[in-house]
Amino acid sequence: MMGILACLLANGAWAAAEEVAEDAAGSSTLALDTTWVVTAAALVFFMQAGFALLESGMSRSKNSVNVMMKNYLDACLGTLVFWLVGFGLMFGHNNSGWIGTSHFMPSHLAQWDYTVLLFQTMFAATAITICSGAMAERTRYDAYLIAACVLAALIYPVFGSWVWGGLYGGGGWLAKLGFIDFAGSTVVHSVGAWCALAGILVLGPRTGRFSPEDGSSRQIPGHNLSLVALGGFILWLGWFGFNGGSTLAASADVGLIVLNTQLAAAAGAIGAVLTSRVSARPVLLTATVNGSIAGLVGITAGCAVMEPPFAIVTGLLAGVISVLGASWMERMHLDDVVGAVPVHGFAGVWGTLAVGLFQTGKLFDPGQLVVQLVGVLAAFVWAFFGALLVFFLIHKTMGLRVSTGEEQQGLDFSEHDEVGYPEFHKDQTWHRL
Amino acid sequence: MMGILACLLANGAWAAAEEVAEDAAGSSTLALDTTWVVTAAALVFFMQAGFALLESGMSRSKNSVNVMMKNYLDACLGTLVFWLVGFGLMFGHNNSGWIGTSHFMPSHLAQWDYTVLLFQTMFAATAITICSGAMAERTRYDAYLIAACVLAALIYPVFGSWVWGGLYGGGGWLAKLGFIDFAGSTVVHSVGAWCALAGILVLGPRTGRFSPEDGSSRQIPGHNLSLVALGGFILWLGWFGFNGGSTLAASADVGLIVLNTQLAAAAGAIGAVLTSRVSARPVLLTATVNGSIAGLVGITAGCAVMEPPFAIVTGLLAGVISVLGASWMERMHLDDVVGAVPVHGFAGVWGTLAVGLFQTGKLFDPGQLVVQLVGVLAAFVWAFFGALLVFFLIHKTMGLRVSTGEEQQGLDFSEHDEVGYPEFHKDQTWHRL
Amino acid sequence: MMGILACLLANGAWAAAEEVAEDAAGSSTLALDTTWVVTAAALVFFMQAGFALLESGMSRSKNSVNVMMKNYLDACLGTLVFWLVGFGLMFGHNNSGWIGTSHFMPSHLAQWDYTVLLFQTMFAATAITICSGAMAERTRYDAYLIAACVLAALIYPVFGSWVWGGLYGGGGWLAKLGFIDFAGSTVVHSVGAWCALAGILVLGPRTGRFSPEDGSSRQIPGHNLSLVALGGFILWLGWFGFNGGSTLAASADVGLIVLNTQLAAAAGAIGAVLTSRVSARPVLLTATVNGSIAGLVGITAGCAVMEPPFAIVTGLLAGVISVLGASWMERMHLDDVVGAVPVHGFAGVWGTLAVGLFQTGKLFDPGQLVVQLVGVLAAFVWAFFGALLVFFLIHKTMGLRVSTGEEQQGLDFSEHDEVGYPEFHKDQTWHRL
Repeated sequence: MMGILACLLANGAWAAAEEVAEDAAGSSTLALDTTWVVTAAALVFFMQAGFALLESGMSRSKNSVNVMMKNYLDACLGTLVFWLVGFGLMFGHNNSGWIGTSHFMPSHLAQWDYTVLLFQTMFAATAITICSGAMAERTRYDAYLIAACVLAALIYPVFGSWVWGGLYGGGGWLAKLGFIDFAGSTVVHSVGAWCALAGILVLGPRTGRFSPEDGSSRQIPGHNLSLVALGGFILWLGWFGFNGGSTLAASADVGLIVLNTQLAAAAGAIGAVLTSRVSARPVLLTATVNGSIAGLVGITAGCAVMEPPFAIVTGLLAGVISVLGASWMERMHLDDVVGAVPVHGFAGVWGTLAVGLFQTGKLFDPGQLVVQLVGVLAAFVWAFFGALLVFFLIHKTMGLRVSTGEEQQGLDFSEHDEVGYPEFHKDQTWHRL
Repeated sequence: MMGILACLLANGAWAAAEEVAEDAAGSSTLALDTTWVVTAAALVFFMQAGFALLESGMSRSKNSVNVMMKNYLDACLGTLVFWLVGFGLMFGHNNSGWIGTSHFMPSHLAQWDYTVLLFQTMFAATAITICSGAMAERTRYDAYLIAACVLAALIYPVFGSWVWGGLYGGGGWLAKLGFIDFAGSTVVHSVGAWCALAGILVLGPRTGRFSPEDGSSRQIPGHNLSLVALGGFILWLGWFGFNGGSTLAASADVGLIVLNTQLAAAAGAIGAVLTSRVSARPVLLTATVNGSIAGLVGITAGCAVMEPPFAIVTGLLAGVISVLGASWMERMHLDDVVGAVPVHGFAGVWGTLAVGLFQTGKLFDPGQLVVQLVGVLAAFVWAFFGALLVFFLIHKTMGLRVSTGEEQQGLDFSEHDEVGYPEFHKDQTWHRL
Repeated sequence: MMGILACLLANGAWAAAEEVAEDAAGSSTLALDTTWVVTAAALVFFMQAGFALLESGMSRSKNSVNVMMKNYLDACLGTLVFWLVGFGLMFGHNNSGWIGTSHFMPSHLAQWDYTVLLFQTMFAATAITICSGAMAERTRYDAYLIAACVLAALIYPVFGSWVWGGLYGGGGWLAKLGFIDFAGSTVVHSVGAWCALAGILVLGPRTGRFSPEDGSSRQIPGHNLSLVALGGFILWLGWFGFNGGSTLAASADVGLIVLNTQLAAAAGAIGAVLTSRVSARPVLLTATVNGSIAGLVGITAGCAVMEPPFAIVTGLLAGVISVLGASWMERMHLDDVVGAVPVHGFAGVWGTLAVGLFQTGKLFDPGQLVVQLVGVLAAFVWAFFGALLVFFLIHKTMGLRVSTGEEQQGLDFSEHDEVGYPEFHKDQTWHRL
């Protein structure tokens, strides 16, 4: 009996020790997960600066204050609106699989849930800011900000709930189908790009971009390519958090995820350069930077489930697509100032499908490919037509586009009260300060 | 007896297992705390670039080298001076509650203490660089650097010792009173701002800022608003480390802390925009960026003890205060080039008091509010009058301000041997390269 | 007997508990090591932006697209080439001590090895981009990219294998000798600088840099010193990851390592400023920023084995060396546009030797000093003569340098199809867009 007692005690000691170890490891793991995801969230936040610099550099200096104000304020409004309603729609109880219905204006959450909310706020801000660049240089400032709020409140989170939803019970219908989009090639980037495409269609091209007589196109050079390159480097950096943090845990897998991210970005730029050379196009800095971003968009869906050689192929083809897609957009007379639609949309589609081709252990899986295609189409239908309705309503009520005169003067004059470079501009006549 | 032995053995096994688990968790926790706080320190360091860009962008290009040199060198001097004496004064043995008296020129410290020293060095550099922007475009370069050294060596660390002191025994009198300033709304930002206010008073406004005849004010536009926006994004990013690292440990609380930081920054910008619109002021990019920074300053004291809705209110009102405060400064003919005093000073006061209003579990606590007020007043009295004495002594000995001629030529000409943009400037006559 | 059983059980419980604790701690430690090294890798990646801004700012605007394209693409090519062959040569099985012979095009590695590969990829990209700045404003674009590939594929990894090699068995001959280069003062920075020196020699100076008549030198001012300062801040920031991540583990030592990095950078700038003042040179922003980078290069070898006062001395002297070295280069008619050779080469030699002087517990150790000297000389012989051969072969075949006419028009005209600032430049005649 004493032996049994001893045995029980020993077992008790074992169990207790296991508990102690797990408790210690548990609280340490929570802290580790938290600090990693917060670090990643900080990197994703910095992408806002990357987008702002890229758009500013590719626009004319007469719109530079407007570009920065749009990017700064859509980050601010997106943050607040996502807290108000977006998080609840995307991550709340989701029994239907189509929409979240709890956790609006979240407060008194568990510690970890605040970390998730923070990380997801940065994602929402990324999705909406993609529109900004495509629609640059002719969009009314107030109209843009209203659209950005609707995107952050409704269009982005509803689609998000189909894939990543159900944090508090339930789950999205696309997730249940087996759709894989690790960090959001489709959820974030394509959704943002389809909204941008809708905006471009409603807006029409910038004055002078396409000739009214013969339909020929004219390049409108950006005012500062150093800012474009810096923006590219910052976006690339931020993507390490975007993909690496999407584990939503500190994990030893982060090494492969971020390595794949790096390889795909590099391959994307090379893909864009080679495509330009092969097709006898000039090798532009803007196209090169966009190629690397396309590589990043492309690998975002599959970075956690591919080996490096496939990450390189995914990125390389994404870069090719970004150049060919930009040409196609130009032929269609769609005026996308920064190339957001080919880079975030077309490359996002490719990256999402690539998961069905290159997944480790399941190479060229037709079933997965079909599921990926369903997700891609669902994103297009919801985001494109949803945003089309939003932009159309704005167009019919308050007006989406500035007048031709305002466009020629520059939005800094018509919409703001400051100019970007008061000492440098060669044409100072419109300068009223 | 054997049972007792078994029992002892089992207990021994338990205790030993507990020890093993704690040891493993302990060394892992130290490494985790270290890497998190170092990551946060890196983010805080990057704020130096944010301050430099903000100040440079808001100044005229004829002073751009001067602005960068001041910011670069105050970070360097601040780092060395804080190691020499500041750390000891702020964190050394503090039996009196008024000053630290050990650990000057620290060497052979424990591993963790080096991490703390690193993080606190970045804080000291932040506090002193706040002055730089407020006093831009007319301060003698050598005089500024000497003042920066005194601030880093004496004014900042002595006040800091009252709140955060006693790392090696003892503690500050304000801490003992129950004063709460989690990451330094008062300790870092207000102290820096009151020093800046003293500098502004001794210096006087820039030539041409206020009319000598009728006292009317004239805006002097900054030369590069793209740099201002980039600086704003970088400061915002750096603040995640500023507030998130102030746990001085990897903690699951970091999620809420950084989320509150994000929400307050966004709300601050919106507060500034709304205030401008309501009061029929133009909505300036500079004011918008400053609004978000004011939101960040405001939430710095209470980010760890508030729920998100109160973080939003704190940030929103900080943004309102930054606009109204800047107007008040202008009416008082106080020429603060970047708005450092309203943003870091007035919003810092508000944020420190907000802890007495919005603390979770202790809403609208009059006792706490009084303690917060005592801390705010102590900071003003010490930092403002201390810095006033420093700047006055410099003014009377070596001179604090450049001559009007030098000011008109630009400090890059009078104080340095380079110009910022030799190829672009429209007025090349002063260019001697 | 029952007692023995109880004893065994208790011991079993103990052992099992120990195992549980170690397992939990083990997987947590791997995740922690991974997230820290990935964070550090992200910071090192950001140095690419720092190098690009520094080089761009110190060059003329007519070459700004060229500078950015070189920096963007050498990061991309370096990443892919290092994955293809560099990693295998540097870290593969290394029985000879002279070269790695496995793990080319790595795939299906262990989780942790992907993290190491990621971090080392960033290091390779850093090493090769050092050349870019030194050879700016007159190098053929294609020729530069080919040279960068050879550097990343061969010259950098072979030397690296001598010091850090043998990840999969074996080890480098310099490591076996006891050579200490913690994060690469020699392995990364000096190797890059000696390649740059070889390139400068083959290229010759920029047209107009030295007078053909009297040999006097003429300063060619960079077009944007704000970008130079921003680049300096970003490099400084990135170095926290460069040195702090070189533990290749989350470690409590990271605090001291990064503190030493911060102190040496600050001291380096002060060293450069003091040297300029003492020798009656103008105190240039470019020299100040370079001084801090020299401090960073200097402390890179010894940051983990020195106490703070010695880190300050190491950094201070590195700053002195960067100014004197730049003067010497000018007297030798070696035209290094950004000062890469004095900053990364001469200061790297000093920093590597300083380990033999200032190592904690082994101050002024002549044996160590001799070993350090052997490593320094080996690096020079291999990298300088290797790169000299590469550049000479390129020079003799495709040509390394653009024509004088192309140089005067600017490389953006002759090598690219975009201009950096189409709206601002005062001389628009060469603008064909």
